Amino acid sequence: MSRKVYSELNPPQRLLLGAGPTNIDPRVLKALSLPIVEHLDPYFMEVMDETVELLRYAFKTNNRMTLPISGSGSAGMESALCNVIESGDEIIVCINGFFGERISEIVQRCGGKSIEVRAPWGRIIERDFVEEALANSNAKAVAIVHAETSTGILQPLKEISNVTHEYDALLIVDAVTSLGGCELFVDEWGIDICYSASQKCLSCPPGLAPITASERAMNVIRNRRTKVQSWYLDLSTIEKYWLESNRVYHHTAPILLVYALREGLRLLYEEGIENRWMRHKRNIQALIRGLEERGLEIFTDKAHICPAVVAVNVPNWVKDEDIRRRLREEYNIAISGGLGELKGKIWRIGLMGVNSNEKNVTLILNALKNSLKIKTAENNKNLQHHTNRKIY
Amino acid sequence: MSRKVYSELNPPQRLLLGAGPTNIDPRVLKALSLPIVEHLDPYFMEVMDETVELLRYAFKTNNRMTLPISGSGSAGMESALCNVIESGDEIIVCINGFFGERISEIVQRCGGKSIEVRAPWGRIIERDFVEEALANSNAKAVAIVHAETSTGILQPLKEISNVTHEYDALLIVDAVTSLGGCELFVDEWGIDICYSASQKCLSCPPGLAPITASERAMNVIRNRRTKVQSWYLDLSTIEKYWLESNRVYHHTAPILLVYALREGLRLLYEEGIENRWMRHKRNIQALIRGLEERGLEIFTDKAHICPAVVAVNVPNWVKDEDIRRRLREEYNIAISGGLGELKGKIWRIGLMGVNSNEKNVTLILNALKNSLKIKTAENNKNLQHHTNRKIY
Repeated sequence: MSRKVYSELNPPQRLLLGAGPTNIDPRVLKALSLPIVEHLDPYFMEVMDETVELLRYAFKTNNRMTLPISGSGSAGMESALCNVIESGDEIIVCINGFFGERISEIVQRCGGKSIEVRAPWGRIIERDFVEEALANSNAKAVAIVHAETSTGILQPLKEISNVTHEYDALLIVDAVTSLGGCELFVDEWGIDICYSASQKCLSCPPGLAPITASERAMNVIRNRRTKVQSWYLDLSTIEKYWLESNRVYHHTAPILLVYALREGLRLLYEEGIENRWMRHKRNIQALIRGLEERGLEIFTDKAHICPAVVAVNVPNWVKDEDIRRRLREEYNIAISGGLGELKGKIWRIGLMGVNSNEKNVTLILNALKNSLKIKTAENNKNLQHHTNRKIY
Repeated sequence: MSRKVYSELNPPQRLLLGAGPTNIDPRVLKALSLPIVEHLDPYFMEVMDETVELLRYAFKTNNRMTLPISGSGSAGMESALCNVIESGDEIIVCINGFFGERISEIVQRCGGKSIEVRAPWGRIIERDFVEEALANSNAKAVAIVHAETSTGILQPLKEISNVTHEYDALLIVDAVTSLGGCELFVDEWGIDICYSASQKCLSCPPGLAPITASERAMNVIRNRRTKVQSWYLDLSTIEKYWLESNRVYHHTAPILLVYALREGLRLLYEEGIENRWMRHKRNIQALIRGLEERGLEIFTDKAHICPAVVAVNVPNWVKDEDIRRRLREEYNIAISGGLGELKGKIWRIGLMGVNSNEKNVTLILNALKNSLKIKTAENNKNLQHHTNRKIY
């Protein structure tokens, strides 16, 4: 019996214009292939220190507790929640998309009581509803998503932060899709815990979840009655490895991913974060104009568009997956479909990090135009039906 | 005020002969720099399927539930435990080193009761003590470390597996340091859950924790009364992404690390796992002979030496850190010190994956010989004192 042969990897060259991961900056890719050292090597400790400094720059924070969790953005989410929550704690969870739902699920698994404040997917959470929930509960924290990757809505945070602190609760913010691409001021906005992911606007490979926590949050965490249920995600022990000079071993950090993250953050630092934010805003606006000129409708409330990802309605005369397959197979471009209740109904087009540029705006607009045209030509009955609709 | 400049990364070229991570095979490094695709890309799904097949080969198992957890080996440990344990469950934890202690800590954080069976560090756990613990408890599982990275002891598992199953408990095995370097038969030995890490004998970067679980274990997990406390590490939902054909999105896998793991496993498969085991055994034996010829004492019970890492006593006339610094600075070789109660008392020398070869045996023996000689010459009072001791 002959043995199966496993061939060399040969992945296609795709332009990743979906909801993340994004393409990796060539400089980050180069950093990934540098010689590995041990997780307690003096050289790696310098790398760790500089990564932390650069993360503070990216988060616009002076928080001592700032480091990358060794896992995906969802590990960052779970870490933020499980460090704060003890059995029976009430947490207000703002839900206007897929990742708000995930927060609520994790709150419950941490033994917390999730008090849900809901808005329709694609709309922001209104401050007054958060206040109402705060007034009617004994909430320890409010958890909210800054840039809902599932809908492309960008949540204003300052007013919600103010009211959260009036009620002496902590503000936990999901910045998975916003960090490094969308205006975010952790200290100025009074965010207590903020987590993100490496594979979105930082143009790094997936596998790290930057997180930062205020002293106020750390005081709550340090004064817990019980241990954090997750050993792996326990910030008070991870900080002994990442932030204290005597470096108490916790777990083996994904060393090459840390090299990559440092390089991704160095790119951000060199460009200047404000310039980066403007670039993302400029390109997403050009994309939206182009989509609308071609007769496509933006799904999300246009007053609160996230500069990193935009959601458009799938026209009712095409099939979501047909178009995405065509984009992938004919143009080597990946865009994302909808998650959860929006499956089949929207496309999510991302311009994140290195991918946020004018060339990519043109590429995706042309590819979409051609794909939609061909598609409608194929279904000529539908085409007849839609001739009075401007498609491109 | 001038802005701090962050320089390009320029890590030293180290030979990693410690307790892990090990150096990365050049083919694995190449795989890491291949084009990234999305976590739901059809190409990535093929990569996932083949990675799972190759992991089954490495674990010597037919378990359907076989996949890499997106985190370090400790995330694998936590996943193995938190999926099985519900509040109040009794778990027998075998402790003869640092990682046994960690298991006990995590069991308690999962709400379990840890029933500890202890042996001195560097000695194996005896079957009879496990039986005694089983007879005197209502244990749901026995957790034990196969290759204790902290001491280099290799634990025989077959008899402990038999008695564990006589008492209808599950056997959970930590194979972080053994997978791919030391004989390990998950199915034949009746291991119910086995987890490992990518950065040891698989010569991959750190950041993934391969795990496999038997149907017996999965039945226990599927029939839990309560949800697994960790959302991120919940095997029943991760499997929907990794193992089911309709691929329900769970979290964004660290795609490049999966490329790397597949390549590391492909190297294992090409060499043949039995050949790989023999190579590790042969080289560790040559290393031990050389160490003993130079007057160094093996810390670990020599009847149960792990073929991937060996612990030697730090001679009492030198300082642990001086020698390790000298090896690092003069030879660019990293070896590990002791963990926990063995800090300053032992060195751990690893020959893992690509690093298990004759050349490295010679290199570390010569480097150690020179470092110890110079060191003793410096401390000439001590040298006088030890002239009748054969050092090299």
